[in-house]
Amino acid sequence: MTTTVIVGGVAGGMSTATRLRRLDENMEIIVVEGTGHVSFANCGLPYHVSDTIPKRSSLLLQTPQSLRARFNLDVRVNTLATAIDREAQTVTLVGPDGTSQQHYDYLVLSPGGVPIIPPIPGIDRALTLRTVEDLDAIKEQLDSTNAKSAALIGGGFIGLELAENLVKRGMDVTVIEKAAQILAPLDPEMANIVTKHLEKNGVKVITGADTTAITEKTVELKDGQSINAELVVAAIGVRPRNELAVQAGLEVGERGGIKVDEQLRTNDPRIFALGDAAEKIDAASQAPTLVPLAQTANRHGRLLADIIAGRDDDRTTVKPTLGTAIVGLFELAAGAVGWNEKRARAEGRNVRIIHLHPMSHAGYYPGAAQLHLKLVIDAETDLILGAQAVGRSGVDKRIDVISMAMRTGMKAQELADVELAYSPQYGSAKDPINMAGFIDDNILRGERTFQWYEVEDAINDGWTLVDVRTPGEYERGTLPGAVNISVDELRDHIDELRGKKLLVNCQVGLRGHIAVTILSQYGIEAANLDGGYLTYSHGTQK
Amino acid sequence: MTTTVIVGGVAGGMSTATRLRRLDENMEIIVVEGTGHVSFANCGLPYHVSDTIPKRSSLLLQTPQSLRARFNLDVRVNTLATAIDREAQTVTLVGPDGTSQQHYDYLVLSPGGVPIIPPIPGIDRALTLRTVEDLDAIKEQLDSTNAKSAALIGGGFIGLELAENLVKRGMDVTVIEKAAQILAPLDPEMANIVTKHLEKNGVKVITGADTTAITEKTVELKDGQSINAELVVAAIGVRPRNELAVQAGLEVGERGGIKVDEQLRTNDPRIFALGDAAEKIDAASQAPTLVPLAQTANRHGRLLADIIAGRDDDRTTVKPTLGTAIVGLFELAAGAVGWNEKRARAEGRNVRIIHLHPMSHAGYYPGAAQLHLKLVIDAETDLILGAQAVGRSGVDKRIDVISMAMRTGMKAQELADVELAYSPQYGSAKDPINMAGFIDDNILRGERTFQWYEVEDAINDGWTLVDVRTPGEYERGTLPGAVNISVDELRDHIDELRGKKLLVNCQVGLRGHIAVTILSQYGIEAANLDGGYLTYSHGTQK
Repeated sequence: MTTTVIVGGVAGGMSTATRLRRLDENMEIIVVEGTGHVSFANCGLPYHVSDTIPKRSSLLLQTPQSLRARFNLDVRVNTLATAIDREAQTVTLVGPDGTSQQHYDYLVLSPGGVPIIPPIPGIDRALTLRTVEDLDAIKEQLDSTNAKSAALIGGGFIGLELAENLVKRGMDVTVIEKAAQILAPLDPEMANIVTKHLEKNGVKVITGADTTAITEKTVELKDGQSINAELVVAAIGVRPRNELAVQAGLEVGERGGIKVDEQLRTNDPRIFALGDAAEKIDAASQAPTLVPLAQTANRHGRLLADIIAGRDDDRTTVKPTLGTAIVGLFELAAGAVGWNEKRARAEGRNVRIIHLHPMSHAGYYPGAAQLHLKLVIDAETDLILGAQAVGRSGVDKRIDVISMAMRTGMKAQELADVELAYSPQYGSAKDPINMAGFIDDNILRGERTFQWYEVEDAINDGWTLVDVRTPGEYERGTLPGAVNISVDELRDHIDELRGKKLLVNCQVGLRGHIAVTILSQYGIEAANLDGGYLTYSHGTQK
Repeated sequence: MTTTVIVGGVAGGMSTATRLRRLDENMEIIVVEGTGHVSFANCGLPYHVSDTIPKRSSLLLQTPQSLRARFNLDVRVNTLATAIDREAQTVTLVGPDGTSQQHYDYLVLSPGGVPIIPPIPGIDRALTLRTVEDLDAIKEQLDSTNAKSAALIGGGFIGLELAENLVKRGMDVTVIEKAAQILAPLDPEMANIVTKHLEKNGVKVITGADTTAITEKTVELKDGQSINAELVVAAIGVRPRNELAVQAGLEVGERGGIKVDEQLRTNDPRIFALGDAAEKIDAASQAPTLVPLAQTANRHGRLLADIIAGRDDDRTTVKPTLGTAIVGLFELAAGAVGWNEKRARAEGRNVRIIHLHPMSHAGYYPGAAQLHLKLVIDAETDLILGAQAVGRSGVDKRIDVISMAMRTGMKAQELADVELAYSPQYGSAKDPINMAGFIDDNILRGERTFQWYEVEDAINDGWTLVDVRTPGEYERGTLPGAVNISVDELRDHIDELRGKKLLVNCQVGLRGHIAVTILSQYGIEAANLDGGYLTYSHGTQK
């Protein structure tokens, strides 16, 4: 009998196990899991803290018993794999019944990630949130101490989700982020929208924070701030749990991910790796990357079972990853796919950037909310490198549509022609996605745009700033030194504008585009401020 | 000076006009509109009947004055184009100031559709809903007569939207549909879900109805039913408004749509047509079709302006249409893209059908609702021919994602690998879209499935029906003659099942798939009921 041992019983490991059984009724399949729970809902953990998900049991999707009954799996919880003997094809298992050597024909490593713990004095008091046991510890501390204040060290997805749920428990919550912005997958002008929303909902957000010490009741920052924090959670991110692989001489990458080929094989052909512990291939650069996402682990688990069961065709290979992700915070969603502008520029790409702020659905139908959308486009190929979206509704949909465009190699300009489901509750006759395609097309046809961070340089470079909004809008705030000529009156002011270089802005970029088309046709050099005053405000807000 | 005359001032016509001005500041652009309003929100009209959209003015997006100010357009409402002299390049305009001959260099026909009025005695009492004037007439009749009952003749999008809004006014509402089902874009088992939902919300739905007469207060049916209907609205659909084109000798297709090439030119190179009056090209068959959708009209308007302005590159052509559409009814959404099964079979295609019923987002997060999804796949190429979805949330997103897959020629199997934004509020680690790819992959690997309408034939053909759900589920209703062996106990019953052909069902198809994988590996011929008992119930419900 062939034996497959799977280390890790959550997303990647358990998807491998159940699919493998469906393909091979006779194989011995052993799943070992270090914690006390398999197939639990990692992504749901923060929501039980506030009882948004009221029942702990609803996070436990399967048990060893249910998996035995349906899939005839040998699932062993509280069991660690501590060593691999590749020569002998055995793995050392340490569980409730002691230590044993388990033979394998195939070994699957899906141990996940380890929360990163920064070397700060007093950090041993900080909890983490990755397992059901972690969740229990947080709830136990909150319930037993009746804590009123919390600090989250790290402004990523998990830290912010926890912040929301702790606020919903009525606590004073501070997010402490070392970088200049929260939510690293977003560019700063997009992340700032989220920061403002968090603050409006009672979360204190400190960026550029240098944590120097954690005391019994506080977190101390280098700038002298002392943050009340009866509860401290370290939510900086995870690194691949690679110790077992390293000890066995399996290759790991620069950032610690276990190296695998496109069939998820390590450098030992009998050992496979997947999930947060394994490297992925980045879709834009084709370089190794780490993408700790549940969906990728699940998908790779199914594929790996096919591979172990002997399937071998052109579909049985891992596809490069786009890293599509989303987070919901106090009814606001922030999503991203692919590269952000920072990343694209760091990679030396020549990019075209588009910001737009359309309504999530037809503005005349109740409940429409403004969507903030950003595209990062390869200026040479017109391929989409990445996108970001923030808003109250329709964010997931637009990110998914762009993810599809990226996966299929659709050009940005082609977004103009995609046909999305429209009725006034769900979209617009010109959907935000179509609008992005229109804007890209305009730029491809020669319209020049400036980004929010280029305004200062433009002024120094002799551009005259013209705000083409209404006087009322202009009064409420404009760009430094901008004069006001509303778009509907522009044709009456052509003569006085001749000979100048005009950087035009409106609120979101649409009237600015119209203004530029008028001015250009009168022979006036004109450029539009991409995303309008709104993107400028988002980028420059403090 | 070049003059462009545009007939029709709503979606297609006005998109042409405004874009054309942005491209050409000097052209004379005249827009004539037969009704009293331009750029109004057709798709929003039904919602003002119930004051869901409280202000009539919010449906009027532009006025002739605002379009003059911003785009320097000459917009003439209540003006009809009654004749074209192609030789002289003039069009006869009849407006408030009398009749005139207007020269054109380019003529754009975007007159829209005409509501179809069936030849039923008494039909002259029926109203329609296509223009602001139509809306005013309906509201005026309702307000002045204090009508308590209404009949909608036609169970398409507009008829059903009106039904919802009339119920919200507190009226007794009956939908009278001649065909065997409402919502022609859906197949019957999908449309039935909507019918049931409408009925639960107080709408009476009569299908297969033969209307014989409309009396002063009723609608009479051939089967003897007399429906109370103080208000009667004919909402059967629209035909192309093609009289002007026909009179001018422009070619029209079989169903009356004005024939155009891929640059929207009619057989007269100076005359273009778009919107509901013009033919489109169907993406799956490449044959002419009619698709009266606002988004297509808007998109084509922009493109047509580019064409008239002299742009000529590989992007300046109309793309074949998928006809993506959605309707929202009492919080339920029903969407469709491409061909349904009826259509695909009528075209003689060999199709693979997939039904699935996943949750709209992670089941453990509050607010998850079941989604009903159907894919129609070309069995030879694995290309997606169409999809339908019904559910309370996430319908628009999944239809849009499949629309993207269809547009880019992605194969159904590849849906397994698409990366959609996941966190528990928005999706699942295995999104419904991925699941559809998994199911397609299973069938491609040899798993046999039956459709709900094939069960009877299967029984006659000697298949034994096995319901693999729990005894509790089985008790509440099952397939005719099915025995109950729950999937978790299947391995204990292998011996008694040997030698039989087993058609297995569960609730939605997932446990059935697992059962088939077990049975097959023991050498037992087994097939799964696609979509499970739920699809069977939807298909067979009366």
